[in-house]
Amino acid sequence: MSIKEQPKNSGHTMADGSKMKPQKRLYDPETRRSSHAEEARTLAQQHVTATLCSISKQHDGHPYGSFVTYAMHEGQPIFLISGLAEHTKNLMKNPKASLLISENSAENPLASARVTLVGACRKLDEEEVGAARETYLRHHPSAVAYVDFRDFFFFGLEVSAVRYIGGFGKMSWFEHDDWITAEPDPLSEHAHEIITHMNEDHEDAMVLYCETMSDAQNVQSAVMTGIDRYGFEMDATQTDGVHPIRIAFSHEVETPDEARIELVRMVKEARKKLAS
Amino acid sequence: MSIKEQPKNSGHTMADGSKMKPQKRLYDPETRRSSHAEEARTLAQQHVTATLCSISKQHDGHPYGSFVTYAMHEGQPIFLISGLAEHTKNLMKNPKASLLISENSAENPLASARVTLVGACRKLDEEEVGAARETYLRHHPSAVAYVDFRDFFFFGLEVSAVRYIGGFGKMSWFEHDDWITAEPDPLSEHAHEIITHMNEDHEDAMVLYCETMSDAQNVQSAVMTGIDRYGFEMDATQTDGVHPIRIAFSHEVETPDEARIELVRMVKEARKKLAS
Repeated sequence: MSIKEQPKNSGHTMADGSKMKPQKRLYDPETRRSSHAEEARTLAQQHVTATLCSISKQHDGHPYGSFVTYAMHEGQPIFLISGLAEHTKNLMKNPKASLLISENSAENPLASARVTLVGACRKLDEEEVGAARETYLRHHPSAVAYVDFRDFFFFGLEVSAVRYIGGFGKMSWFEHDDWITAEPDPLSEHAHEIITHMNEDHEDAMVLYCETMSDAQNVQSAVMTGIDRYGFEMDATQTDGVHPIRIAFSHEVETPDEARIELVRMVKEARKKLAS
Repeated sequence: MSIKEQPKNSGHTMADGSKMKPQKRLYDPETRRSSHAEEARTLAQQHVTATLCSISKQHDGHPYGSFVTYAMHEGQPIFLISGLAEHTKNLMKNPKASLLISENSAENPLASARVTLVGACRKLDEEEVGAARETYLRHHPSAVAYVDFRDFFFFGLEVSAVRYIGGFGKMSWFEHDDWITAEPDPLSEHAHEIITHMNEDHEDAMVLYCETMSDAQNVQSAVMTGIDRYGFEMDATQTDGVHPIRIAFSHEVETPDEARIELVRMVKEARKKLAS
């Protein structure tokens, strides 16, 4: 079970006793979206560098953060690390570990999504190395230069708990089963391309979606900001300012082509609504 | 005392028993350069986001990595963190911590410089907050929006030990005193500008430096790759390939203007050598 903490943007009390003002929402908050576990799996899949935290052998009981390259293999982050490195010595003594993977958006760092995978990090067994090696080298082709060094080993982090922070007030803890059953978003690697295309060529369609499928009115402009298997997000500008809008697809979309077909179908649906 | 591990690029044995071939060095390895502590202090000064490692309260004995914004204040990383955040709860229970600050160069991740600061991370006392707050807000002006929330606190990491990795085979451990007495490089924030200027307008001068102040010969081109208070680095292309060259200044340089004056003086010195 995933325990989601609700956004509480009216929860902070200022030193002077005043509170933050929440913004009016122009779409159904129940609109289907990725689960936190799905977002976290997607984030892990998109990156190849992270921070590995181990328990320091040299500095008694201190947590030790180190920079690592990784690849996701069957839901498990895998590493190719040197026996001479601090983290390797640490893990050999104590396998307790975590891995922080972060978007690290330079503009607004605290709004960036990040995930901490907590678990035991151990040297992979002989029989596990073959498939892991293949996955790792696909993500890190230059590692072929040292993958056969005798002092380099494949390690894997067995994820037991996950902390996901998707931005301000969007966070949850979940366990192994939620993590392992969630699938990374199939549109993720194409999202940038789809968004660019929609914003360059189909703003009219997006204004139409906003006006017929959300509570936005007199929309002056709409910009796509995100897309995933379940739907898409826009920033809609109306007279009182810019509002986020999320609209769901009628079914789960797996490929850019399926997304295109669904977006075209939705324009037709929107035009019908407008005409009726 | 700093314990520097020497580069061992002939040290790795391949699975087939062969060894890596070291490259011939065209400059004096004793050429003055920043100490590892100075490089580490410079790196810490250049960044504002990092990974904080604490000991998980919720997941017994596991190290917990979280994304943080920080600022350097009198050699100490300081944080403005929420009492609701995992890392804050962890540190309240156990102050043992580390902070990983990393360049994270996308092109060649394992060659990027990174530093792990190990120590105790505690809530700052009332009398420490004033100056820390000022430093923090200078580096994170948008934090003014929540610095006065009642559930946000300033924490500081008392650095007791430092692990610095400057790239392949360039690494050391050092203690509090080396860390605190080292000064960040004063040219650091101007380095990019100086390097761009030199590469755009003064390649002839750099070829001259290489030919008269290093063992390079018949240099076809030279590109500046780094500059610091003690000297500068170039990639020199000669018939057998590209070689790194480091040349020291005659004295410590503190400002871009001092660097310019010294670089001009060195051209004159080089011309004299060539004429003699």
